[in-house]
Formats: sequence, structure tokens, C-alpha cells
Amino acid sequence: MNERTPSNEQTLCVVGLGLIGGSLLRAAERAGWTVQGTATSAADVALARKAGFDVTSALDEALRAAAESDALVVLAVPLPAVEEVLAVVAREAPRCPLTDVVGVKRPVAAAVARCAPLVRYVGGHPMAGRSASGWAAGSAELFVAAPWVVSADDGADTAVWAQVAGLALDCGAHVVPASAADHDAAVARVSHLSHVLAAVLASVGADGGPLAMALGAGSFTDGTRVAGSPPDLVRAMCEGNQGALLTAVDDALGRLGAARGSLASTGGLAATIRAGHLARRAFDAARGGNPAVNTPDVDTLHVDLDGAGALERLREIGRAGGRVVALDGQRCTVRAIHQAITARR
Amino acid sequence: MNERTPSNEQTLCVVGLGLIGGSLLRAAERAGWTVQGTATSAADVALARKAGFDVTSALDEALRAAAESDALVVLAVPLPAVEEVLAVVAREAPRCPLTDVVGVKRPVAAAVARCAPLVRYVGGHPMAGRSASGWAAGSAELFVAAPWVVSADDGADTAVWAQVAGLALDCGAHVVPASAADHDAAVARVSHLSHVLAAVLASVGADGGPLAMALGAGSFTDGTRVAGSPPDLVRAMCEGNQGALLTAVDDALGRLGAARGSLASTGGLAATIRAGHLARRAFDAARGGNPAVNTPDVDTLHVDLDGAGALERLREIGRAGGRVVALDGQRCTVRAIHQAITARR
Repeated sequence: MNERTPSNEQTLCVVGLGLIGGSLLRAAERAGWTVQGTATSAADVALARKAGFDVTSALDEALRAAAESDALVVLAVPLPAVEEVLAVVAREAPRCPLTDVVGVKRPVAAAVARCAPLVRYVGGHPMAGRSASGWAAGSAELFVAAPWVVSADDGADTAVWAQVAGLALDCGAHVVPASAADHDAAVARVSHLSHVLAAVLASVGADGGPLAMALGAGSFTDGTRVAGSPPDLVRAMCEGNQGALLTAVDDALGRLGAARGSLASTGGLAATIRAGHLARRAFDAARGGNPAVNTPDVDTLHVDLDGAGALERLREIGRAGGRVVALDGQRCTVRAIHQAITARR
Repeated sequence: MNERTPSNEQTLCVVGLGLIGGSLLRAAERAGWTVQGTATSAADVALARKAGFDVTSALDEALRAAAESDALVVLAVPLPAVEEVLAVVAREAPRCPLTDVVGVKRPVAAAVARCAPLVRYVGGHPMAGRSASGWAAGSAELFVAAPWVVSADDGADTAVWAQVAGLALDCGAHVVPASAADHDAAVARVSHLSHVLAAVLASVGADGGPLAMALGAGSFTDGTRVAGSPPDLVRAMCEGNQGALLTAVDDALGRLGAARGSLASTGGLAATIRAGHLARRAFDAARGGNPAVNTPDVDTLHVDLDGAGALERLREIGRAGGRVVALDGQRCTVRAIHQAITARR
């Protein structure tokens, strides 16, 4: 999957053992990390224990142990629970290396600055959702071949950055470096808007009554799939990205309004359908690209995390569609594939 | 799959051997029909011949043979090609039993009335699309467990209705009876709007540049899947249903605008997300239902096609989410499952 040899000395403390946290615990353990976990859900704790993991329902206890072993702490709780957990982090593990897996990055970074200002925080976001939730829905395979954003804002501790990126690579993901703001703008378009449009489509379909429901086939099934996700999680994710999501919704309203106008006046939808088709092809091309290092037409770059401007360079790589596919050594050197993506602005 | 024993004496003539027509040729032959086909695509004709089917590129010849054997003729061409084919049907097989598989029903019915008024036409629409197209993409399994609308407008020849419904059942589909107008309104909501929203979502995503494309995960992949369909087919399908699609797009614009207003003013998306979630659950419940005849909480109805008001009764069943799952004998008796679907208006 990648060329990194995991160190057996790394310890991980996962807070929250739902779909993502539970999958992370499994994947990191398999990659050789020493893992421990904690969750408020008694069901998730019981299931994780039954599976042989070292987990506790006592958050403070777990964080004290994490502080003692200098573990990387991962917040794997929904956005609304982040502040409450951070208050305990600030008390029990105030200088720990910390990351998270929440779907928005600016609000979490702001909460960390407010509630636990001394922790060495580098945000993260594995793009590996599913409709199902809870420990039972998880899998060590969840992150394989998925993009995992690791925030590369100025001021980040590059040693922690390497640790978080290493965790993502160990789980089989590839790392997309991005500023918190760039991340939030991008996921508003490709993730949060997807949820809003799925909800709208599902509702318009149901408005058509039982006959319409009976005729829903592949296009409706796929287009509404994520409307089946737990609504509280979807709300928290979308509402937590209010500003960027408004921009994306306005873009969608503009495009849908233009389609409406064209259909009503000329009866034609050529521009809408053609633009969507080209966009989907650009996406297929971007997705198809998980090329081996040194493939022709792919650039291999090296970024020294200890060098000047390393984080800015990483952000540029991410903005151009590039990804970090390997880390040499414990930290310091990063290799990146810089993809020739032809998506159009 | 159903309780119908196909008659070996039935003959089918499929005009157009793309995904749907090619799949129909295979499925009907497997079910015991004598099948023949014709297409303008030299590639599709060559592939069908290579697979051992009796096909010709000469439309007039195929229709003359169909008239001689009183074959059921199926128009499996895109909407823009329907009139041209109908002109040949009117000349070579003017009184044949005729159906079609086009995604809109009112425009086809109008074209038949205009171009081939003597044929015994009963419209059809198997809800079994895919992104791929052409003979090579087809399969005898394409229609298994899919809904197949058979138009039940007043004035239809009930013997032909039974023949078309029998073909659908023989292909493994279940039959949803509906008026052409009800069909077009329903598919505008669950199919054509899905395509428009997929195009909009794909374009908004691509507007985010390579980073957004790199972060597209499951929700974006599923939400834009049908934007990968051949754009000319999608346009023809959507534009052919202009009036009903405008209603559906307006509903979507209203709902998306309400979501935008709520997000901007209160920061909340509860109503949008909750409504979408309930709608998707209603859809899952409707889909999940392909219950065996005589399951408790399912009504089994019998409709005598030769009885008074049979077509009206069938339309009512379809409007309530019911489906025809079996035909007893060559025609006449229909059994229907009347589902308790709780989708909300």
C-alpha cells in the first residue's frame, strides 16, 4: 500500500469508537501501533472489548494513560461533542499530539485553540464515510485507497504532521495536504452538498407518492443513498461548515435555476447535462489516478518537512490534486505524486 | 420469479439493439419467445448476430416479417428516433401489436397516434437503466426484479396489454400499471430530476478544482454516477418530459432554496435533512417489498382484463404502489400485490 514501515513504538488513543474511530482502532493495530480507545457508548465499548481491544468508558483515565505514553490522541467524535472532549484533553493530556477525523476542519481548529491551546494539533479527515454507524459497522479496511486530508496550516508541528500522515498511510489511505479553509471549501462541494441534494431529491421523490417510490430505480437509489445516513450526524457535519456550504448551495441553486430557465424557455438541457458529464469524467480521471510512484506522466516530489516553506509546499501539492504516498523514516521526508488533473474551474 | 408459463408461440421483434433492446432480445429468447431484431448500429447488429440472434439492419424487412408472424413489435430506440421508426411501422406492419421501452410515455403515445394510428399500442417502460450503453452492455438479467411500467390508459387493447405485461414478467420484472401522465409525473421526480441534480452536483464539485475532485468520496461518487451516462440519451429523456420535469425541478428549487434560507439565517438544516431521511426510509420500505403472494399484510387482488373498468382498476393499483406479479393464462386474469406504502404527500 505504501513504503512506510510502521514503528512498533507508536501509541494511539482513539476517543470515540463509532464507524470511523472503531475502524481506526482496528486498522492501526493491524499496522503495528499500540492502540487504546475510549467511548461514551456502552455498546461500542462492550463490542470493542469483546474484540480484544484495550478500551475504557472513562475518558479521563484514557487520556491520562495517553499522556504518560505520549500517545497520539485522535478525536473520533461528532463535531458537537468536540468541545466537551477537548476540555478533558486540556486537563489530562494538555501537551499531547492531537488529531481528529471530523468532517470540517476550521471549526475544530478554532475549538482546539480555544479549549486546549497547548496541544500539538494537526487536523485530519479520512474521506471514508458510509451510511451505517457504530463499532459494528467498522472495518480495518475502511480507509484503504481513501483520501485522508491532513491539515497543513502554517504553524503546525511538522513532527506531529508526519505522525498523523504516517497513521493515515499505515491505514492504507493516501494523504491529501490542505489548509483547513481549502478543505472546508472543497468538502462543502463534494460531500456536504451531496447530502443536501440527496435529501432534496428524496423528498421530491416521496412527494410523488407510492407510484413514484415504486418507480425509483438506479438513479434515484444512488442519488438518495446518503439520505439514509444518521440525520444527526449529517446535520452536525453540514451545519458545522455553514459558510462554505452556503457558497456551494448558491452555486447549485444558480445552476439548477439556469437549467430550469433553459428547459422552460427553449425546452433544452444541453448545457446542464454536458457540463455535468464533463465534470463527472474529470472526477473519474482524478479518481482513477492512484498511480505507482515513478509512473511516467506523474511527478514524484520530495518535501523535507524540516525545510523552509514545507507546509506551504504541501498545501500547493494538495491544491493541484497531489497526494502524499509515502514517508521515509519516522518523519522529515515526504514523497508526493503530483497528478495532472484537468478539472475545469 | 413469477407464475407465468411462457407460450412458445409468441414472437417478438425488437427495433433497436442497444442496452435495453439487446437485453430484451436475450431475456425474451431465454423465456421461450421467438425473437428477431433490427438496429441501425452496424456494431450492435454484428455483435447480436455473433451471439446467434436473428437480426438484420433492414428495418422494413424486419417489420414485414413481424407483420407476417403477428409479432409483438418493441420500439427500443431513443425518443428522437421514434417518429422515423413509426413511419416505417405504419407502412410495413400497420396493425401490429406495439410497445416501447422509452422513458417517457405521453410523447410516444402522441407520436403513435399521429404516425401509426392503426397499430395496437400499449406503452412500456422497464426501469432498468445503467450508465453503459450498446449491445455489449446488455444482459438477460437486466430486468430481474425491476419495475416495468405498462401503460393502462383507457382505450388500450387489453389483449395487447396482457401480451406486454407477460413479456415483462417473462423477463423477471414486475409490472406497474399506470396512465401515461401518471408515469411521466412520477419518473420526472425519481429519474429525470436525479439526472439533473447529478449534473448540477458534478459541476459544482468540478468548480472546486483538483482538490475537490481528489476529495470526492462515496457521497459524491454515488450522487454523480448517472452524470456519466451518455449525455445525448439523458438529454432526450429529460427534454422529452419537459412539463413534468419542470414541476419536479420547481419542487427541488423550492426545497433547496428553503434549505439555503434556513442555513443562512439560523444555521440549521434540520427540516431538510430530516425530511430527506424519512423519504429515503419510505423508499427503502417500498423497494424492500417484493413480497411473495399471500404474505400477510399484503393484499392479493384479481383483475379480469376483460371486465368493465379493468384498466382504471389497474391504474389505481399502480398509483397505490401495487404491482402485477402474475398472469394466469394467455391473458384475462391478473393478480396484483397491493402494497401498504406509507410515503407521505
